[in-house]
Formats: sequence, C-alpha cells, structure tokens
Amino acid sequence: MTTLSPPQLRIDPGRLMGRISELARIGGLPSGAVKRLAFSDEDVAARAVVRDWMEQAGLTVRIDAAGNLIGRREGNRAAAGALVTGSHIDTVPTGGRFDGALGVIAGIEVAQCLQEADLQLDHPLEVIAFADEENTMIGCKSIVGTAASDPERFRTNVNLPIRTCLERIGGDWDRLPSARRGPADLACYLELHVEQGGVLEAVNRQIGVVEGVVGQQRYTLTVHGQANHAGTTPMGMRHDALTTAAQLILAVEDMARHFPGDPVATIGKLSVWPNAANIVPGRVDMSLDMRDLSHAVIDHMRAHLERKIENIAVTSRNRIEMEPQFVVDPTPADGTIQDVIVDCCDGLGLSHTHLPSRASHDAQEIGRLTAMGMIFVPSRDGVSHSGEEYTSDEQCAQGTEVLLRSLIALDQKLA
Amino acid sequence: MTTLSPPQLRIDPGRLMGRISELARIGGLPSGAVKRLAFSDEDVAARAVVRDWMEQAGLTVRIDAAGNLIGRREGNRAAAGALVTGSHIDTVPTGGRFDGALGVIAGIEVAQCLQEADLQLDHPLEVIAFADEENTMIGCKSIVGTAASDPERFRTNVNLPIRTCLERIGGDWDRLPSARRGPADLACYLELHVEQGGVLEAVNRQIGVVEGVVGQQRYTLTVHGQANHAGTTPMGMRHDALTTAAQLILAVEDMARHFPGDPVATIGKLSVWPNAANIVPGRVDMSLDMRDLSHAVIDHMRAHLERKIENIAVTSRNRIEMEPQFVVDPTPADGTIQDVIVDCCDGLGLSHTHLPSRASHDAQEIGRLTAMGMIFVPSRDGVSHSGEEYTSDEQCAQGTEVLLRSLIALDQKLA
Repeated sequence: MTTLSPPQLRIDPGRLMGRISELARIGGLPSGAVKRLAFSDEDVAARAVVRDWMEQAGLTVRIDAAGNLIGRREGNRAAAGALVTGSHIDTVPTGGRFDGALGVIAGIEVAQCLQEADLQLDHPLEVIAFADEENTMIGCKSIVGTAASDPERFRTNVNLPIRTCLERIGGDWDRLPSARRGPADLACYLELHVEQGGVLEAVNRQIGVVEGVVGQQRYTLTVHGQANHAGTTPMGMRHDALTTAAQLILAVEDMARHFPGDPVATIGKLSVWPNAANIVPGRVDMSLDMRDLSHAVIDHMRAHLERKIENIAVTSRNRIEMEPQFVVDPTPADGTIQDVIVDCCDGLGLSHTHLPSRASHDAQEIGRLTAMGMIFVPSRDGVSHSGEEYTSDEQCAQGTEVLLRSLIALDQKLA
Repeated sequence: MTTLSPPQLRIDPGRLMGRISELARIGGLPSGAVKRLAFSDEDVAARAVVRDWMEQAGLTVRIDAAGNLIGRREGNRAAAGALVTGSHIDTVPTGGRFDGALGVIAGIEVAQCLQEADLQLDHPLEVIAFADEENTMIGCKSIVGTAASDPERFRTNVNLPIRTCLERIGGDWDRLPSARRGPADLACYLELHVEQGGVLEAVNRQIGVVEGVVGQQRYTLTVHGQANHAGTTPMGMRHDALTTAAQLILAVEDMARHFPGDPVATIGKLSVWPNAANIVPGRVDMSLDMRDLSHAVIDHMRAHLERKIENIAVTSRNRIEMEPQFVVDPTPADGTIQDVIVDCCDGLGLSHTHLPSRASHDAQEIGRLTAMGMIFVPSRDGVSHSGEEYTSDEQCAQGTEVLLRSLIALDQKLA
C-alpha cells in the first residue's frame, strides 16, 4: 500500500471548472440558466459526456437499473464497502450550472487525482451521477430500496412513463430492485454541493459542514368563515376567513422565528373563496410547510400550532382544519464524517461552520442506508434554481479539495 | 282637497304579497332564488306585469329613454315636484324575491290605496322601476345625468351592447339625455327596501330609518417581497410578501373596528405569487374596500392606513403600494324625511332604529338630485342576493304602511 501524502496531492482547478462550463453548455439557455430535465435529450447527451470523463479518470462505468451512472475504482481491500461520492446532473426547468453538477464533476476530479498520483485507497471509490434528483429521486431511492413499485406513481418532468424514461438512459424498470445496495456495499456517502441558501455568505465562511438534511411536514390549513356582503355586514357580525388566516400566517411566522434551533415554516400557497373585492371572504385554503433537522422539533411545532389554532378558532368563531399531506424524515449527517470535514478544512486553512441542509439532496436518501456527510460551498446571494446561481472558481476548487482530503481521511478511518 | 285620514287608509297586505309571489315566479329557479337579469327575457316579461299593475293602480305609465318604467299620478298642484318612490325589479344571477321588488310593488300599493280611497295629494306621485340597478345603474344615473356617454363603458350582464339592451325594454340610447330630470321635477325620493344586512334583526327593531347610503373607496394593495426557496431560506433572511400582507389584513380589520362610527373595511380578494407550497411568497395583490356614511371618516381611515403601511413596510423590509381604483361619494338621507319616517313608525307603534345603508341603491344616485330617504325592513339572518333572502309578510306590510304614511306626511310638509 502506497503511503498517502495529501499535502502533495492537488486537484486541477482548470480541469474542474472547464468541465463545469462544458456541462453547462448542454441545455444552456440564452438567459444563462440551464434546462437539462432528467430523461430529456439534454440529459442523455450530458450523461454521455460524464461517462467519458469517468472513464478518463480511470473509473469502471456501469448504469444500474435505476439509471444511475456509476464509476468505480477498486480498493486494496476487496471486501470493503465503497466510499461513495457524487450528486446529479439533471436540473429544474431553469436551473443553475452548479447545483448537482459540481458534486459529480468534483467526484470525478477526486478519482482522476488518485489515478494520476497512482494512489490506491483501501476502500473502493464510487462516483455516482444519480438519476432524476430534481423530481422523482428514482436514482437514489432505488439504491436505498424506497422507490415506489407502481410506475403510475412517477410523474416525470418530460411527461413520459417512467419505464420509457429509464430506457432512454440505459436503466430498466423491470429490474429496478436490482439497483438496491446493501449496507455492507457502502462504507459511507459524502456529497459536495452548493449551499442554495445564504448562510455561508452571511456568516462569511468558506465551507459548510452539513449537520443533516432537514425533515419536512406538509399540511393544508383551511379556515371556514362565512361569505357575506362587504358593504352590509358590520365588522362585529363578520366571520371573515381571511382575517383569521392572517392570524394563522403570523402565528406560524412567529413560531418558527422563536422556536429553539433554526426551523423554517412557510405558508407559500393561499387561495380565498369567493375572492371578490365586495365580499367578505368565506373560506381560505393554505399550505403549511415545516422543516427542521430534528423530528422532535417539527412535532413540537405541530403541537404548538394545534393549540394556537384552537385559540384562534375560538376567538375568531371560525372553524379551522389542519390536514396532513406528507412527512419526510430528517437525515442526520454522521458525526465522524463531520469531524473529518472540519479537520480537512483546518488543514487547508479554510473557515467553516456547521449548518443544516434545508433543501433535498441525494444524500438525504443515501443517508438512510449508510453514514452520510455533505460539504457545502457558498451560493452568491443564496440564489439557486436560477441562471443567477453562482459559486466562484475558487470556492468550487476549495470544496473539491475538502472532498478529496475527506475521502482519503475516511478511507483510513473507516473499517 | 280631500282631508287625508291616514288612520283609515290601509294597504292590502294580501295584494302586496300576492304580487311579490307572482313576480318571483318570473325567473324563479328551482333553488328558490330568482334570476331576472336586467334586459333579459325575464326582465322584459316582469316589466310588462309591473306595467299592468301600475295601470291597475291608476297610474299613467311611460318608459323613459333609459328604460325606467315610470307610473305617475297627478297632484292638486300641477307645478309641484313629484313625490317619487320605487326601486328595481332586476336581480343578480341568484337573487332573492324581495331585493328591489318590494320597493316597486309597495310603491304601486301606495298608489292603489290612494286611488281606492279617492285621495288626491297636492304633489304628483311617481312610482319608478329603475333600469338595471344591480349592474350599470343606467336607470337612476340617467335621471341624475351621471350615466356614462360612451356606450362601450357599459358591460351588461346579458352580454349585449347597451343600445340593444335599452331597445329591448323600450328605452333609446340616442335619446338618453332626455331621461334627465331637473331638481324642480322632484319634491323628494323615498325608497322602501329590505335591509340586506343583520342589524335590525340583531337589535330587534321593525323599521330601519336610513341615515344615508355609505360612500366607498376601493384600492389595490401590493406587497413586493422576494420569492425564495422555502427550505433553504432561514426565517431571518426572508422577504415574505404574505406575512407582510397578513399584517396589513389585521391592520385594516383593527382600524375599521376601532374607528369612530361604524365604518367597514374589507380585503376580499387576494392573490399570491408564485403561490407554491415550497416557495416563500414573493408578491401579494389585494383589494381594499372601505365604506362609511362620512367622506371624512373614509379619508381619515385612508390616511391612518397610509401611515400604518409605512410602518409595516419599514419593519418588514418589503415595499407596499396602495393604488386607488374608484371613489363613490356617500349620499346622506334628508333629515326631514328621517323625522317623518320616525313619526310614522311611532304612529303605527313600530319600533325603529337609525342605520346607514352599506349597500348601493337607486336612492344613492337619486339622492344626488333631490332630498332622499330610505325605509328598511329586516332581512332574516342578514342574507340577500340568495334564494335564502327572506322578509316576512308582516314585515313587508309594515314597511309598506310606513311608506304610505310617510309619503302622505311629506306631501303635506314639503313645498
């Protein structure tokens, strides 16, 4: 076994950023945004390019039944689980050039560095471009074994059946269960991603050490008032559903701001019935979205809100319903992996802070199967899913250096 | 001149209610509601029936250029202005059987009582069924001279040009200015109407003495925030347009409840952009409707709100715009007419209270030309514009008695 000398090992920032630019041209829009919907022609073309890069990096490439593009470099210990890194290369309809792409290209860069330095790790290394992260998450979920088995459950962004979609990228719906991996197949999962939020910029740190991907509870809130003539109904005789809804909106805001930790709660969607200027609102329907790293915090917020709703219903004399829509469990990041990332940052002289990931990532699913960690680099103005999404060359390179060193450290640390 | 003996003069409640039922069959829906849109076949049919009743009551009937159906009984003093009463027989798409119809049929009943008792008033008496009260108000506005002169400005509920509409009911667009009356043509205007609100029922009074028809100011309020990811944007970094809108909604409610008098203020219409459960709202547009008897009170509310908006904009860091849409001036009821109504109630042993009319009526327009008064009878549960609209036979008869006696008293009191 060659002795590893991380200080001498360096990524190639020019190659890294060149590949990010090259990938951004596939599906690039005049606005500067990127449209590379999963399973689209652009996705197919980008996957071919990424496959080439994986092969240039000396990885052995396969596509599993879920359409995940997997590049593997064997390790010294044949029976060891793989150190896995990666992300996705599909985008939302007006996506940025960094979201997902950075994690995949950085993973390939790590593999290529190891190849060029002729360094063999103890563990195998896998770089994965997961299929359709932005929508169905069929790629990462199939590896964990949590993808739906009914093809009708998949509404793809290209409006094609999931079976056809998988065929287009070399997957196979009928063999989907074969994509599943066991816990022993993986030693850990570490993903580099742009923050997609403004925390690192606000606190002026170079690297984010992710504490976990937040869990989520989604509800609909309905206020039942009584529609009435806005002229002839005195204020004291109204059952105005919108003024009651306004109290709820402020109660949700106040709760999220004052609850311990940094939970978020959002009422993003609201409709008024009958929605006429001269009619006192009779009914309001709203969405409620609550996210936090801790299941318990979300549960406490829900309980707090239920009591608040009771009070508001009594004082407003309007009935209020709260209906659950869905729950996503939080995925904590592994403590050892967080410590390794911190050590690598310190070694490189990079400032860092711990923070939760409040967006979904492949890591949130893979983290249900194996120890998970994420490295964030700053997003300018916190903007993503937009042509305005931007992370500097230096920041991308710093994140990739941390990824490289962390994977090497984990190789030595993990069984 | 015959000496009038109001105590011996009695309306015929059976005839009154029979006519209300008969009219309700024209355009009657299975739900119990009435659909008799102005200028529709049902309106044309109902006008023919009402014309017959006017003639049975000894009135000389004409239709003016605005389509107003006018029955006139001459008085002793040929040069005197007319005592005018009436209302409308058109309805909203799902109207009730009393809104408007009661005032027209009660006016005919008054005329028929006078005819049967062979009583001649000093003033002429006119009973008017005004054209299209529920929408364009072309009837009453043409009499006052405030109807628009551009036919394109009229959007009728039957989707026909106003010229065609007037033709259908015997009016004449080209001669519209001829419908205008001068102040000397009218001695006063007194209208009986159902309350369309719940005040009389709430305070348990039989007759409402209207203090005036409220004025109205309509605005649009726009909150400019910043749309952002509901997961990745921490609470402290948000520019949530909806939480700011919620503060405005409660400020408007609070203002109207605590302002002196009984103003009403309503945010009835609201839309959120982009209106997605996982996006912090970036923009909210709302209607604001404020009504009061006093112009000054509405102006004070607007000024109060402008200051409030400034504060909310500063603390929320979101820009807020307030754009005027339209202003309708209030129409105060004449003090002498209010006193006459009170005296008549007292004479009949009917309980009464003063209250504003917060709905629009023909009286609001005619009151800009001559001294105006309105008599309200209770609406069950305050409901109108609905098949559930209900005023009992006894209440309809009581209102009609008050109308009869008040007109006779005004005949003696007015020049």
